[in-house]
Amino acid sequence: MQTAVRRPTFDDLNLSTGKRARLHRLMYEHGPANGTLLLLPIDQGLEHGPVDFFENPDSIDTEWVLKLALEGKFSGIAYHIGLAEKYHKHFAGRVPLLLKVNGKTTIPSDDDAFSPLTSSVEDAVRLGADAVGYTLYVGSPAQADDIAQLNEVRRECDRFGMPLVIWAYPRGSAVKAKGGQDSLYAIEYAARVACEVGADIVKLNVPVWDAAKAANSPKPYNTLQLSESDALARVVKAAGRTLVLVSGGSKLSDADTLHKAKLAMEAGCVGLIFGRNMWQRKWDNALEMSAQVHEVMKQFPA
Amino acid sequence: MQTAVRRPTFDDLNLSTGKRARLHRLMYEHGPANGTLLLLPIDQGLEHGPVDFFENPDSIDTEWVLKLALEGKFSGIAYHIGLAEKYHKHFAGRVPLLLKVNGKTTIPSDDDAFSPLTSSVEDAVRLGADAVGYTLYVGSPAQADDIAQLNEVRRECDRFGMPLVIWAYPRGSAVKAKGGQDSLYAIEYAARVACEVGADIVKLNVPVWDAAKAANSPKPYNTLQLSESDALARVVKAAGRTLVLVSGGSKLSDADTLHKAKLAMEAGCVGLIFGRNMWQRKWDNALEMSAQVHEVMKQFPA
Amino acid sequence: MQTAVRRPTFDDLNLSTGKRARLHRLMYEHGPANGTLLLLPIDQGLEHGPVDFFENPDSIDTEWVLKLALEGKFSGIAYHIGLAEKYHKHFAGRVPLLLKVNGKTTIPSDDDAFSPLTSSVEDAVRLGADAVGYTLYVGSPAQADDIAQLNEVRRECDRFGMPLVIWAYPRGSAVKAKGGQDSLYAIEYAARVACEVGADIVKLNVPVWDAAKAANSPKPYNTLQLSESDALARVVKAAGRTLVLVSGGSKLSDADTLHKAKLAMEAGCVGLIFGRNMWQRKWDNALEMSAQVHEVMKQFPA
Amino acid sequence: MQTAVRRPTFDDLNLSTGKRARLHRLMYEHGPANGTLLLLPIDQGLEHGPVDFFENPDSIDTEWVLKLALEGKFSGIAYHIGLAEKYHKHFAGRVPLLLKVNGKTTIPSDDDAFSPLTSSVEDAVRLGADAVGYTLYVGSPAQADDIAQLNEVRRECDRFGMPLVIWAYPRGSAVKAKGGQDSLYAIEYAARVACEVGADIVKLNVPVWDAAKAANSPKPYNTLQLSESDALARVVKAAGRTLVLVSGGSKLSDADTLHKAKLAMEAGCVGLIFGRNMWQRKWDNALEMSAQVHEVMKQFPA
Amino acid sequence: MQTAVRRPTFDDLNLSTGKRARLHRLMYEHGPANGTLLLLPIDQGLEHGPVDFFENPDSIDTEWVLKLALEGKFSGIAYHIGLAEKYHKHFAGRVPLLLKVNGKTTIPSDDDAFSPLTSSVEDAVRLGADAVGYTLYVGSPAQADDIAQLNEVRRECDRFGMPLVIWAYPRGSAVKAKGGQDSLYAIEYAARVACEVGADIVKLNVPVWDAAKAANSPKPYNTLQLSESDALARVVKAAGRTLVLVSGGSKLSDADTLHKAKLAMEAGCVGLIFGRNMWQRKWDNALEMSAQVHEVMKQFPA
Repeated sequence: MQTAVRRPTFDDLNLSTGKRARLHRLMYEHGPANGTLLLLPIDQGLEHGPVDFFENPDSIDTEWVLKLALEGKFSGIAYHIGLAEKYHKHFAGRVPLLLKVNGKTTIPSDDDAFSPLTSSVEDAVRLGADAVGYTLYVGSPAQADDIAQLNEVRRECDRFGMPLVIWAYPRGSAVKAKGGQDSLYAIEYAARVACEVGADIVKLNVPVWDAAKAANSPKPYNTLQLSESDALARVVKAAGRTLVLVSGGSKLSDADTLHKAKLAMEAGCVGLIFGRNMWQRKWDNALEMSAQVHEVMKQFPA
Repeated sequence: MQTAVRRPTFDDLNLSTGKRARLHRLMYEHGPANGTLLLLPIDQGLEHGPVDFFENPDSIDTEWVLKLALEGKFSGIAYHIGLAEKYHKHFAGRVPLLLKVNGKTTIPSDDDAFSPLTSSVEDAVRLGADAVGYTLYVGSPAQADDIAQLNEVRRECDRFGMPLVIWAYPRGSAVKAKGGQDSLYAIEYAARVACEVGADIVKLNVPVWDAAKAANSPKPYNTLQLSESDALARVVKAAGRTLVLVSGGSKLSDADTLHKAKLAMEAGCVGLIFGRNMWQRKWDNALEMSAQVHEVMKQFPA
Repeated sequence: MQTAVRRPTFDDLNLSTGKRARLHRLMYEHGPANGTLLLLPIDQGLEHGPVDFFENPDSIDTEWVLKLALEGKFSGIAYHIGLAEKYHKHFAGRVPLLLKVNGKTTIPSDDDAFSPLTSSVEDAVRLGADAVGYTLYVGSPAQADDIAQLNEVRRECDRFGMPLVIWAYPRGSAVKAKGGQDSLYAIEYAARVACEVGADIVKLNVPVWDAAKAANSPKPYNTLQLSESDALARVVKAAGRTLVLVSGGSKLSDADTLHKAKLAMEAGCVGLIFGRNMWQRKWDNALEMSAQVHEVMKQFPA
Repeated sequence: MQTAVRRPTFDDLNLSTGKRARLHRLMYEHGPANGTLLLLPIDQGLEHGPVDFFENPDSIDTEWVLKLALEGKFSGIAYHIGLAEKYHKHFAGRVPLLLKVNGKTTIPSDDDAFSPLTSSVEDAVRLGADAVGYTLYVGSPAQADDIAQLNEVRRECDRFGMPLVIWAYPRGSAVKAKGGQDSLYAIEYAARVACEVGADIVKLNVPVWDAAKAANSPKPYNTLQLSESDALARVVKAAGRTLVLVSGGSKLSDADTLHKAKLAMEAGCVGLIFGRNMWQRKWDNALEMSAQVHEVMKQFPA
Repeated sequence: MQTAVRRPTFDDLNLSTGKRARLHRLMYEHGPANGTLLLLPIDQGLEHGPVDFFENPDSIDTEWVLKLALEGKFSGIAYHIGLAEKYHKHFAGRVPLLLKVNGKTTIPSDDDAFSPLTSSVEDAVRLGADAVGYTLYVGSPAQADDIAQLNEVRRECDRFGMPLVIWAYPRGSAVKAKGGQDSLYAIEYAARVACEVGADIVKLNVPVWDAAKAANSPKPYNTLQLSESDALARVVKAAGRTLVLVSGGSKLSDADTLHKAKLAMEAGCVGLIFGRNMWQRKWDNALEMSAQVHEVMKQFPA
């Protein structure tokens, strides 16, 4: 049954003509095409390393992933400049591009997490992208550099009519000390920050209740134990007029993947950004999973 | 019956990823969506004045024209910045935008024809356009300013991955003295110029044989009387790896409009840009004519 | 009785937040404050010379005119940089400023009419202006320079969220040859041009029927004799989603001034820009006339 | 009874025409409109996190806060770019905007407090703002970056005629070691710094006497115990020709809120910037409190 | 016998015309000239110091090395701006130039390894270079500065049509802690990073299995013991559409040098970048070794 959740409209978001044209392609011409989003990210080679490709060795070939994006009817693919330059040409126009404009490796410590630019909004324009992605490590001791860098990206997005998707990830030593990156405290804060700094769309994780960790969160979060769906609903509300995408995270079982999809949509999210949960499956299974997720999303038209 | 004419491919045109993404939308996701183009221009209010709206007073309302573009399944609409800013928002993503970046009124003499910029390629990017249009008055005494201005537009198109459509119009006192703007001499020359200065697509008129005027054209054009289709085929060949669009010009009868459409496609053009032939008709007739032109174009897939 | 004419709304005009904030001040916080505009221009010292001040010698003192703007409850004053710099400070915030950014003297011939910049949109921002004014001589042989110059002004207006008011004046030798600057042909064309090049508001004159001159206009204008109100209604329609202001022109009788005000509002204009008709009157008479015009405008709320 | 305190005038502040126009709107056309200021800040979602919205869950909806600004007759609202872009359009011109151009989260330690830019003065211009706000962490070990960043903001404010409001907050490890952020030593110093670096208006907290902490302040502050009003009067004097706003801080009782308002106005402040003390109340109570604060402020016209 | 390994083509790499023209010179007009690369680097004087020249004192004379590049038929020479400016003129056009644009000494600790720019892509253009080289220390705690700096270099390479060769070296304290710079974990990760950030060609070392060190690598690398060729094949696969060059490293015996050459080519690398293994030999021996390596490479045409 279809939920009654109301997501912010393009008018609510006060989108410019250009941002509207680009989001329309992602939300109404590709993927479920009903005002929702199902994105396929493949930036893990940089963010985590090739270790993520062991589960399904085919996935190390970016063309394989692009074919999955096409045949699995994803709303778009999200990757870095090097992959976009070398692999996207033959899929140009057929698979919408979200250019991830900053990133880092996972090799050094995350205590002062910060992702430098790997490309620019102008690169995204040049490649015909329909959105850019930026990772903001909310609460990192490096937040001054991060917010300043984001500010320039936001300005360029505004200048070029390019939708801005923020990967709002609580991260760093201070986050660890206040309940951790999966705490409701951290994720709800990250959602609000994304809205205040100008995200059109924010990518977030589903909060996880861990009493031991939460004890370190500021009041009243230290005792605020909510159901998964209530917690996510709070997060969506904190994001205000910024659309929310839920991350897939590491690979889940089929049932858990579908559960997460449903949970997200019922909480008022605009969609999902599922990478490993898709391309760590073999081809047929990945298409099957994509089809099932489409079924869920069809129940939540704009 | 379908012709065997081979049009240049995206690879032939050596299109960048961004130009490919944008042309894909125009050629494979909107309009006939088979690798052809059917564009609806509405820049005549500036170029000719409101006099063009007498035939069908509804057409003075740009929203009416946009609805025609949408329901008549055009590949895109072509207009100036003022109309794009004020009318395009609610059609963003649904009707692809070709921003016409230069123009002029028809009030002063055309002897030194030159169209100054009314907007920029960056405006086109900002508005989410899929192409820009530039009028080059080939052979005008003002050509130095014109070519120089175009050169900047071309450079920006390259920088932003924006397809460049040149309205290549022979115009000015020297053209008049050498056979006129409809002569094969002038149009074939214009086609080649567009290719040499970097057009991805060129908009041209069908050459008209007028013995009296042709007598003033350089040899051998002064005696080169060809059938309409042979003349147009020469023009397409002169354009080389630049795709050719045929202009509709002033309103024709239904039969003549369809004849022109067929003529263009058989000669190897990529499509048509029909304005007055569409929006000077009343709503039902315009939709009917658009449908019939689609029928013609379906016979010429890429 | 209030007419049923519907003027374009801020949403119709697709105004940015900044343009909206500034127009709101002009249209809802000053002057009639009901969504109409009553502007007081004092750029005639540059445009016509001090000759315009003979009628009422007080008017040569700009402070006198500013006091009239304040006490006569005008929506704003329109003048050039020199007056704005030297006179506006003590009226800042109390009398909204429309900075006229280009101008010229009337001493040389108007055949190639063109007004160069006297200031910039950035000057307008710096002075806290709520709009800028630009004179475009539609149809002038100098139109290439004019449109190009306007394009930069428009771009800056967009960048800074500054409303753009175009004084769209048909002018120059070609206009004279085609029916003259007051012909319906010329004014309707000018209205459309303003919309196509991006005016938020256009200042126009009321067309005047002159059979002898009209004979030189293109068909069907050469025989298109309309009532004053029908002619103005056509012009408003041609302006599309650009709001229309009617010029006062040279000083009229009280009755004629009020007639013009009513004519304009009934035709769907957003308001009036009356200079000489105001400040060529002595103080008490000017205030009286302003009050009567307010009475007219109160009947036409947004 | 009205006090005899004389606040600096626009002439004292040597304000440019543009700054004057903008401050006039804030001080004479909105809010109490008598030369005082009553601002509503809603940047706490970024600065403190959504935790501030628990007290009154309605406040997480920025539109609710904007309605409060409108109906509670505040002089303006202060927030970050993301909220301004997404929520301000329908309030443009009705609720003056103070764009907060820098900010940070409270997650990492405040020892080296520094707020990077989240937007620019040009963004403020574009959005039609009437002022910008900048947080300067006076005395922070990061002050070199902070003062340098502020210097650019000040320069842009000067260029665009935009009033500059500095949130002058003593903060960081060195402040802690010298009496703390609420000490007279620190706040009086901050007031003077704001004036010296070019603030038009400075936002300050009311100094708090804490003998234990004050012991660490430099002489003679270590023993300088003053009444609240005498301390604030010193601070106002230290700010010189910079107008002073008093912060509300965390939510107070009704009586304490009104006491603070009166205290501020009697000490010669230009007004108040009360956020949590307003929007942490339920709607009716918030309107009531706003009305009572207006009553206080009416007694202190310019 | 020729292997069946398929290396990415220029089309696979989506190279621009300019990058193609330059790589064509390196790959088809110099060196083996069969689509492979044999580069001679001489940046060790900066990177390691003159200590590397003890083995063969002639090598301290850069002209001697350039003659070796010429007579030993290398595809090109790689060095820093100082050597290029002072030595390359007489070899211009005869020995292709790869300008190394960043570097550092080995004197301080490598824990936070980072190489600043020593020249620019524009210098490379000015000198007629056919490629630039950039050292990226993958996984260094200084990666934020490194990736950001590389991003600018990549952008300039794109702008100027200059092939980008990344020396992708795992380095720094975190790499040491996770298995070391020669571990498969680190090198495979580096290969992928180079591809994601936009390298056309990546220079890598052959992974070395060291059970004790590998134990510190993330699963499954901690136990993933592969043959040298299987490990290198994984690395080549991880590089995707980025061509791979194998480093020579410190001087090896003749047999080991040839073994490494064969190993690299069989694994699908595009070629070798051998410095010390060449110029640490005396002239005749160096030429002889170069000739033997050519023999190997002839078996692996494009």
